[in-house]
Amino acid sequence: MKRKCDLPIGVFDSGVGGLTVMREMIRQLPHEKIIYFGDTARVPYGSKSPNIVVHFSKQITRFLLGKQVKLIVIACNTASALALEALQGQFEIPIIGVVIPGARAAIEATQINKIGVVGTDATVRSGIYTKIIQGMQSNIQVLEKACPLFVPLVEEGFKEHPVTEEVIAHYLASMREAEIDAMILGCTHYPLLRSRIMKYLGEKIQIVNPAYETAMDIKGILAAQNLENNVAMVDTEQYVFYVSDAAEKFQEFANTVMPISVSETKVVNIERY
Amino acid sequence: MKRKCDLPIGVFDSGVGGLTVMREMIRQLPHEKIIYFGDTARVPYGSKSPNIVVHFSKQITRFLLGKQVKLIVIACNTASALALEALQGQFEIPIIGVVIPGARAAIEATQINKIGVVGTDATVRSGIYTKIIQGMQSNIQVLEKACPLFVPLVEEGFKEHPVTEEVIAHYLASMREAEIDAMILGCTHYPLLRSRIMKYLGEKIQIVNPAYETAMDIKGILAAQNLENNVAMVDTEQYVFYVSDAAEKFQEFANTVMPISVSETKVVNIERY
Repeated sequence: MKRKCDLPIGVFDSGVGGLTVMREMIRQLPHEKIIYFGDTARVPYGSKSPNIVVHFSKQITRFLLGKQVKLIVIACNTASALALEALQGQFEIPIIGVVIPGARAAIEATQINKIGVVGTDATVRSGIYTKIIQGMQSNIQVLEKACPLFVPLVEEGFKEHPVTEEVIAHYLASMREAEIDAMILGCTHYPLLRSRIMKYLGEKIQIVNPAYETAMDIKGILAAQNLENNVAMVDTEQYVFYVSDAAEKFQEFANTVMPISVSETKVVNIERY
Repeated sequence: MKRKCDLPIGVFDSGVGGLTVMREMIRQLPHEKIIYFGDTARVPYGSKSPNIVVHFSKQITRFLLGKQVKLIVIACNTASALALEALQGQFEIPIIGVVIPGARAAIEATQINKIGVVGTDATVRSGIYTKIIQGMQSNIQVLEKACPLFVPLVEEGFKEHPVTEEVIAHYLASMREAEIDAMILGCTHYPLLRSRIMKYLGEKIQIVNPAYETAMDIKGILAAQNLENNVAMVDTEQYVFYVSDAAEKFQEFANTVMPISVSETKVVNIERY
């Protein structure tokens, strides 16, 4: 019989962004098996309603549970913001999002108790980062700003284009004025604009990428629950990738950001779950 | 018993863009009942695979058939490009897309047989406009260009922002160089950038918005098949709106572009169809 600690971790995102979280997990938890699901048929989540994001997240959770995962990581800020509580209320398995680890890291980073948060429309509208941060430390001022053009600019390869600089200035002028000293990149695509954002806000800004903190938290939870897999893999199936559409395009992108070679991506009809 | 000509026309799009087609239908076909469906849960289609766009389009067609429509309009360039044939092969009802009417209008507009087409990634990758145009008139040169940033820029309210001018120049430089004299706006959002695009390409350019031509075609098909409704409505339910997510946001937008007041939008679980 398989021991529980041998089971894989399930990771999901609305698309490819969550790969940055998985990448960090591979670094910090090299012995774990990971199953990734990207909802490429219904991406993006950031412009959609809480109801539908909860519905999609439940379908994906049921799919991952069918793969016998031991823990689920919501590697997507929008789904973490809108669906974490609903999933934790319905499913027995440990489920972790990226918002709480990101909030904690930002509180540690700020010296002057002024934190900026950038994210999708849905994440910012939920106000979750402000709630979590002020729940942890009530005297912190939080400025949130939705930046819907960041994802399309990154996906269109405009990272180095002057237009991106103008869009950053458009969104972040109020943050620069407010002189925040820590900034949470509250969307998994945004770390790709990290250096541009730092340049605009000034080199003293502490940029928090929740992916790193999330991987740390996962490590802690696995250890606390005796779920760690400490044995080096001989299994070639250590990392498995599923999407709901366009496997080839996903795989091409995955191979540009992942430290491993992604040679197979399976398509799932996620509506059935 | 209801006569067939009294039945509504079904119109669908991946989101709100198809409202520009419906608006034109209201103008040209004031006596027709129209049922609109916007797939706001899964928008956009333009970055997705042909398989999934066909799958979504079939679900929506089944939903509309359940509402006893007499004709279906695919008011979305991507779905017209990728799914029209599949739908026509499977369903008995007349189904019309926006690509053929747009292509025909552009052929009429060009004097020098050089047409430009802008659209989503999926539409341009399909090469459908080139195929249809050259199938109608083989000596026409067609330049197609995907412009994935146009939709997010419009949706973010950047219509008048200088950034939009730069992005237009980025995408359309090769078209300006090639001195096309007719341009198809092959995505229902793009007419909102019409004046900016004209300014860049020069006032002599003929801009084709397939919405107008599509409404003309619908009129012709209804007449040919004796399906026209020529009686003025007393029915308050002349226009009915369905979406798969975020009804309120949809309705807010609809009320900014439609010549009628949209007071109700119903949410449908489209996966069930």
